Amino acid sequence: MNKAETLNQQIQTAWPAAAALLSPMGLRAAFPAGVPAQAAEAKGCEFNGSIGQVTDGHGNALPLPSLSNLLGDLDRNASLLYPPQLGIAGLRALWRDRITARAPGLSLPLPMVTVALTHGISLCADLFCDAETTVLIPSPSWGNYKAVFGLRREAHLASWAVFDTEMRFNIAGFKAALAQITGRCLVVLNFPGNPTGYSPTEAEADAIAEAVLQHRYPLVIVCDDAYQGMVYEKSAIQDSIFYRIQPHLDPARHLLIKVDGATKELAFFGGRVGFLTFATDEPTAESLLDKAAAIARGTVSSAPAPSQVAVMTCLKNPNLQQELAELHAVLAQRYEKLKACLPDLNAVGVQAFPFNSGCFALLRLPEGCDPHTLRKKLIHSYSVGLVALPEERALRVAYCSMHADQIEEAISRLVRALD
Amino acid sequence: MNKAETLNQQIQTAWPAAAALLSPMGLRAAFPAGVPAQAAEAKGCEFNGSIGQVTDGHGNALPLPSLSNLLGDLDRNASLLYPPQLGIAGLRALWRDRITARAPGLSLPLPMVTVALTHGISLCADLFCDAETTVLIPSPSWGNYKAVFGLRREAHLASWAVFDTEMRFNIAGFKAALAQITGRCLVVLNFPGNPTGYSPTEAEADAIAEAVLQHRYPLVIVCDDAYQGMVYEKSAIQDSIFYRIQPHLDPARHLLIKVDGATKELAFFGGRVGFLTFATDEPTAESLLDKAAAIARGTVSSAPAPSQVAVMTCLKNPNLQQELAELHAVLAQRYEKLKACLPDLNAVGVQAFPFNSGCFALLRLPEGCDPHTLRKKLIHSYSVGLVALPEERALRVAYCSMHADQIEEAISRLVRALD
Repeated sequence: MNKAETLNQQIQTAWPAAAALLSPMGLRAAFPAGVPAQAAEAKGCEFNGSIGQVTDGHGNALPLPSLSNLLGDLDRNASLLYPPQLGIAGLRALWRDRITARAPGLSLPLPMVTVALTHGISLCADLFCDAETTVLIPSPSWGNYKAVFGLRREAHLASWAVFDTEMRFNIAGFKAALAQITGRCLVVLNFPGNPTGYSPTEAEADAIAEAVLQHRYPLVIVCDDAYQGMVYEKSAIQDSIFYRIQPHLDPARHLLIKVDGATKELAFFGGRVGFLTFATDEPTAESLLDKAAAIARGTVSSAPAPSQVAVMTCLKNPNLQQELAELHAVLAQRYEKLKACLPDLNAVGVQAFPFNSGCFALLRLPEGCDPHTLRKKLIHSYSVGLVALPEERALRVAYCSMHADQIEEAISRLVRALD
Repeated sequence: MNKAETLNQQIQTAWPAAAALLSPMGLRAAFPAGVPAQAAEAKGCEFNGSIGQVTDGHGNALPLPSLSNLLGDLDRNASLLYPPQLGIAGLRALWRDRITARAPGLSLPLPMVTVALTHGISLCADLFCDAETTVLIPSPSWGNYKAVFGLRREAHLASWAVFDTEMRFNIAGFKAALAQITGRCLVVLNFPGNPTGYSPTEAEADAIAEAVLQHRYPLVIVCDDAYQGMVYEKSAIQDSIFYRIQPHLDPARHLLIKVDGATKELAFFGGRVGFLTFATDEPTAESLLDKAAAIARGTVSSAPAPSQVAVMTCLKNPNLQQELAELHAVLAQRYEKLKACLPDLNAVGVQAFPFNSGCFALLRLPEGCDPHTLRKKLIHSYSVGLVALPEERALRVAYCSMHADQIEEAISRLVRALD
């Protein structure tokens, strides 16, 4: 039995849904006993000639001063030398602590560090999707799901309208879309959502969780928690829907995966540090991470070490909670400013989709108004940059990237452009 | 005509080999007119609510101090905010200058910044390989080619023995292997090689280049130049074989791609900064980069910004050439130390494969000696860590990661272990 078969057998025994859901590539994948594995065994040797990186012979980097001098307070060896394929051990542990701290008593396997959230979602796509898979995504949703699941994996994309025609959160639509899927399926849950900026209420979230848990066929559930914690209304769930699904998992039918990261949570957009957590027993998570590591090694090798070190160091800083609270207050103020503009928008026939969290608000334009034409007019005549969603006849406002003092004026220019 | 079709038509007209060589995924790929494209248009607006990142409203990052304070002399905005999908413009230009400076008069399109070299090679695999493609790799070669081309793309892997049975560089073997391939083909050239540490002589390199250029079918030629410039003998070519192929390209038959990066060249192993350069006319390179960007966006989005900023800043440092010369001298000294040990190795029946460059030397063990058994014995009884290549009955010595003063003792322990 080769290594992939051994992994598959372990998964089949402990978590049959995961085995049933693996794509052909996922079934084939296994981290090889090559250089990284042999280098790990050689760690600590007095003479270590196992790995192709330049050191001083005692495990320390031998960097170019013109590069090393730039790196401020980042640990030099950890930033300059190869990180482990699954990520720096201390960082993985700290992030797991961060996830489990939100639910007392929760215990989870260690996550893998990914090249930000796109890479985490893309690893899910590689492991579980091909042309035989249906991927259920929200509509509207992050445009990049099409590249991750469609372009790269040729999965069949199905969608559910997040809001019904009366702009209410559309649980019935979600249930109906899910009920239509009979084969291998991956469902992406993204709350707070991009581009909607919406998080469900407790009751809505429970209904979504229940629908997912009651699906008749094995199901991969990917929580895209990019905007975790950016919630500005008490009526919305404050944490990921992950925490509502995880306690009720059936290994015969569900595989729950959490994708999150420092990109938005720590405002480290350029850093490219994300995390992929399999909510299974430890041995199954190890098997699945071994497969994910094999695929990651064949795509990008490991995640960037300086960024990993920065996130790890930041997570240990006792000031972090206070700083995050201050950042949250800044964003909440921007959110409130935009909300205060809604009557002016309504007056010119613009209706906001429900929003309460995340970075965005979505504005439905009056009938007959072309979003791209309006978007270009806003850029060229009003110096206002927004994003058009033609299929929703909408503009997306990233209020996260405007100062609170700018929002009223930006919206008043939009109102003038529409007049 | 959709965007992918427009790109394909441009490529077909200007560089027919590239069009003939694109995989189905490569043919489908086109960077969508989504958020990144719209955000680029909105750049410079007084009110910019186009992109989901937290700024001060004037284009500046609004970072957590506990993260930002770690970043030393790295430019904060460029490190913390989203970089462009193809990489930071200044870095792309500086790296192109670095490549073209090695060949007076050479002009090349801009490279794309990748998540180190693995990502560059993996983008080549995505664009040009599937189960219908033959990928010709050296033997022995970097083990990861199997994951990049085999596991992920199901390409057919063919190989040529870099050395013949008398340990001579095996041009005849390369020609014979290439001649057997009739369909869509991608050939990887890796000099200095991993794990061989070998660079060809001028005559050998010319023969390889000629064989490639005379192949009867359209051919993707990927120069994996990870170890570029790490050459310690005057008899070997000092620069990439890329420079010998590029002047003779026929757009009807050849597509030449250069993959290189800061990983080894600037000893920035953890940074994950690589480059992908298409040696075509400008419009074709733009079309191919548009496709590569689409695939990268669906895999990892962009390369890490702090690492990009570090490399860009380092490349501008006037001390860099001197520092690189000093690093080269350190490695050359390690190389010489290992060479001086060869008679001791020969005395116990160990024969070194030819090596003259890069990071490694490959040692063929005496008949009947199992590399993995010896490797483990070396770790546990001699505190020496090396890598086993069982299929070559060889050990790989990464002399780059041992101090010059350690090499004699490490080899003498190997000799004792063999006795």
